[in-house]
Amino acid sequence: MKADLPALLLSEASLRHSGSTKWLKFPGDVLPLWVADMDYAVAPAITAALHARLSDGLGYFQYHQPEPDVAALLRDKLSSQGVTDLPEGSIRTLPGVVPGLYASVLGLTSPGDDVISMTPIYPPFMSAIADHGRGLRAADLVHGPDGWQIDWAALEAAVTPATRLLMLCHPHNPTGRVWTRTELERLADFALKHDLYVVCDELHADLSFQGPHVAFVSVNPALRERTVTLTGPCKTYNTAGLGIGAAVSHSAALLDRMAKATAGVMGGPSVMSMTMWVAALSSGAEWLAAVMEQLAFNRDLLTERLRAELPWVRYTPPEATYLAFLDLRAHPHAHDIQAFLLSEAKVALNDGPTFGAGYEGFVRLNFATSPEILNEAIDRIVRACASVPV
Amino acid sequence: MKADLPALLLSEASLRHSGSTKWLKFPGDVLPLWVADMDYAVAPAITAALHARLSDGLGYFQYHQPEPDVAALLRDKLSSQGVTDLPEGSIRTLPGVVPGLYASVLGLTSPGDDVISMTPIYPPFMSAIADHGRGLRAADLVHGPDGWQIDWAALEAAVTPATRLLMLCHPHNPTGRVWTRTELERLADFALKHDLYVVCDELHADLSFQGPHVAFVSVNPALRERTVTLTGPCKTYNTAGLGIGAAVSHSAALLDRMAKATAGVMGGPSVMSMTMWVAALSSGAEWLAAVMEQLAFNRDLLTERLRAELPWVRYTPPEATYLAFLDLRAHPHAHDIQAFLLSEAKVALNDGPTFGAGYEGFVRLNFATSPEILNEAIDRIVRACASVPV
Ligand SMILES: Cc1ncc(COP(=O)(O)O)c(C=O)c1O
Ligand SMILES: Cc1ncc(COP(=O)(O)O)c(C=O)c1O
Repeated sequence: MKADLPALLLSEASLRHSGSTKWLKFPGDVLPLWVADMDYAVAPAITAALHARLSDGLGYFQYHQPEPDVAALLRDKLSSQGVTDLPEGSIRTLPGVVPGLYASVLGLTSPGDDVISMTPIYPPFMSAIADHGRGLRAADLVHGPDGWQIDWAALEAAVTPATRLLMLCHPHNPTGRVWTRTELERLADFALKHDLYVVCDELHADLSFQGPHVAFVSVNPALRERTVTLTGPCKTYNTAGLGIGAAVSHSAALLDRMAKATAGVMGGPSVMSMTMWVAALSSGAEWLAAVMEQLAFNRDLLTERLRAELPWVRYTPPEATYLAFLDLRAHPHAHDIQAFLLSEAKVALNDGPTFGAGYEGFVRLNFATSPEILNEAIDRIVRACASVPV
Repeated sequence: MKADLPALLLSEASLRHSGSTKWLKFPGDVLPLWVADMDYAVAPAITAALHARLSDGLGYFQYHQPEPDVAALLRDKLSSQGVTDLPEGSIRTLPGVVPGLYASVLGLTSPGDDVISMTPIYPPFMSAIADHGRGLRAADLVHGPDGWQIDWAALEAAVTPATRLLMLCHPHNPTGRVWTRTELERLADFALKHDLYVVCDELHADLSFQGPHVAFVSVNPALRERTVTLTGPCKTYNTAGLGIGAAVSHSAALLDRMAKATAGVMGGPSVMSMTMWVAALSSGAEWLAAVMEQLAFNRDLLTERLRAELPWVRYTPPEATYLAFLDLRAHPHAHDIQAFLLSEAKVALNDGPTFGAGYEGFVRLNFATSPEILNEAIDRIVRACASVPV
């Protein structure tokens, strides 16, 4: 166990506080390793800034453009990821990244158009496409000996004459892949060849175990006029209840189309969300370093125990995120594995099919908890699986 | 001056804090009596609840439906306004009331349809109609010896075969009218006769000087299937930076249409907004009573000084809200009166034409400040007007 953990982990009472979706959705004897919250307390620098902010008025503030300090801090950060030469007005605040996914579909495509996404994928990618009458063209990733890989032939096959948009997730939820520069360059060529817009959700960028994040738009200057990057603090700093994010693009025209299609409907981010983001960007680094150490420790713990005790589970450790996408298709209960583990192991995971058609037998496990809770969850899964020989 | 004011008024430093739109939009020598924020500190009960909430995690919480306590508290409150028999699921959280105005236009009408609103009106009513390709049918109120009145003939004349929706504001911003039960009943008959949906923005309901608020939907049971009421805490409790609100209807079908038309685009209200609303509904009454006393005092102060010192200003004291809609059309600078008062009196007011076509020469004045600041602003306006004989 990491020595610094006690400072990170929330108390049992705070984990089970009255509003927590993660801890309260399932009965009290279930260990919740599902929705993408971490069981760690928010960075002290953020909490302090939020307390301090309450001394001022909570009235109207400038939120349609990020306040100068958020914009400046975000610009610096993006620049370290290769996103340079951003003109004025190229960072637009969102109430969250999911509203940005929907806004890009609404603004950059028309009803009846097709949109490509690589599955398995974070479910709102698919609902953003389907909810407003666009067609999902799913290109499955392949899970081979080298882990999750892009199936370039499937990607080509997904293109139709009506395809206008490619939706990328980098790092990729749920597989935890961080696309390499070579892969990003090939994705860029693909988008250019088929004249596609690209929206790239880079919300997990800070949670990479691979070193500095390389933004998709940075790999080819020709992407600038056709790419929108979505970012935000909520995964990194464990603040999903304080929705905020940004759509970033060198092309004001693309951002204007997204804004026009959604005019008036998005609430502004709250003043507390804005304060949180400023504190995160300016003073969150030390806390984040401790979290990343803990996450790496937990990931390795999970990997070692799965290899040793459940060798039939196919699994490639994530290169980023605190999410492990596990292939349990060898299990006799593969067809309802999430329900089986919920009832037999009392562990709540996310069900594979929510990440795309064809992912029966997969589950997503969130290991952003204490090693104790993680070990207990693995113990339970091992026991439950022992009762049903594979 | 009210004895309880020092407890209400924010310090100069907190008023001019770095994010304040009201206090920072204009140069430092300007008194800002424009955007609808009050210069009063947030209720101590709310601030305490927000501080306390920061001890728990800030992750995902149940926001698509209000948490049970908000729903229960809001149900009680609505019931005291005559809104009874609300079925399950009839209260849907919004990130703010303006997103609710837009959602009702998007969900209850189609592009090309017409929508009626009574002008002058809070500007987002008009943009909600125009931004998504609906036609505004404006029915002007008339300002006579009895104050602002509905022009029933204008309302009838506004109906076209393409008219689907009537948008009401009750209490009415900017005039401060509280529609009487008789007027509400006649508006109900009008909506029924022309088969219109109605969205009624009742955000200012708590800020009435007339006693208990009577909800529009309560005056005729036949309204239930065609009416959406919008409400929220942000005007009453001075928390516009913590966007939250609710759309309420006996008709799940209407709420579903609003939700479908805006699927995924609205951010959820933040956890801090939700905490604020619970605290406001459960423990905000004492603070609100003090505020209402102060607002009544300020309204009367404004009324007396205008009558005595600027008798050519036509003005009917508001029955609700802290907004005074002033007719300065007798002034030689009527055509640019907001700019004139900004440059000559150093007082920032809202410009009449932003509330509808034909309101040149009108300004909206926000008197939710200290009597000292209000007196100083009136002094300045009187002096500036003295230099230009009327
Ligand atoms: C890839 C990705 N995008 C977006 C989100 C949610 O973003 P937000 O809460 O800002 O809407 C998540 C949450 O897990 C995610 O994994
Ligand atoms: C009538 C009315 N509706 C809505 C709003 C704004 O509501 P929100 O900030 O919740 O979007 C205002 C603000 O002044 C208002 O006067």
